[in-house]
Amino acid sequence: MDGVLADVYAIFADWHERDTGIRKQKEEVVGMREFEAFPDARKYVFTPGFFRALPPIEHGIETVRSLMQRYDVFIVSAATEFPQSVGEKLAWLNEHMPFISWQQVVLCGSKKIVKADIMIDDHFKNLDYFDGQTYLFDQPHNRLAEAGRHTRVRGWSELNAILLP
Amino acid sequence: MDGVLADVYAIFADWHERDTGIRKQKEEVVGMREFEAFPDARKYVFTPGFFRALPPIEHGIETVRSLMQRYDVFIVSAATEFPQSVGEKLAWLNEHMPFISWQQVVLCGSKKIVKADIMIDDHFKNLDYFDGQTYLFDQPHNRLAEAGRHTRVRGWSELNAILLP
Repeated sequence: MDGVLADVYAIFADWHERDTGIRKQKEEVVGMREFEAFPDARKYVFTPGFFRALPPIEHGIETVRSLMQRYDVFIVSAATEFPQSVGEKLAWLNEHMPFISWQQVVLCGSKKIVKADIMIDDHFKNLDYFDGQTYLFDQPHNRLAEAGRHTRVRGWSELNAILLP
Repeated sequence: MDGVLADVYAIFADWHERDTGIRKQKEEVVGMREFEAFPDARKYVFTPGFFRALPPIEHGIETVRSLMQRYDVFIVSAATEFPQSVGEKLAWLNEHMPFISWQQVVLCGSKKIVKADIMIDDHFKNLDYFDGQTYLFDQPHNRLAEAGRHTRVRGWSELNAILLP
């Protein structure tokens, strides 16, 4: 969800501006981990309301809906590190993606336990353990890294073209 | 968790007795699905506090702790059907199994997406899709069914003997 379907940078930047008066642009934080780019990021992700407030990433919702016509889609989100996020993530999905059923949702810690054919994720720590086809969802924090065996995609329109040719 | 680590029958029986004055014994409900055995079971599992109140199943907690010395253990629980359960299940684990880290917890809907070597579960709908070794945890609702390719185990002491010989 975060960094693939839900735009964490938008709220990091909003809250950082609220707290410091300084607006950081995405280009400024390229190559930096989120906790380096926004010094209070770790406090923010433990704040009630953070995960509920995230705006959807462009074209994600409608692309997932299209993918469901041809694929068995699961939404797998690392959530248990932030216990308050589990309810917020279910509420977020209910609002933004009501076509996702409870059967399709996985709220987890490590993603090593996931079995599927394709994984779309913005973190190497998740993709590197996955057996199938992997797409690295481009985000400022991963932009300067070599994608390696993963295929970097720059947004949902590109994924749509690849997965629904 | 439910029916393997947490004793759903105990609370079904307690709440059924509270509401009807009748105490059902486990032997009476052998071969019945939980929702047949306790007509209000579906109402109960959507009631706040149900999942938080479940007592641990005998020898489960200490056996999992022992297993962690030799195995990479994950607690995978079907939870998203009952949104109020996700927070309660995390709180239950935090109280009863504080040695389980957030990385090891998976709250999901369908368990088709689980990749591992061994699965311990009381439901065929979960075991049947799993590629590895499967243990059917004996419960009244599954007792009359043929275990098929799964190995039926009658409690955690038996699992301990099998997995930590």
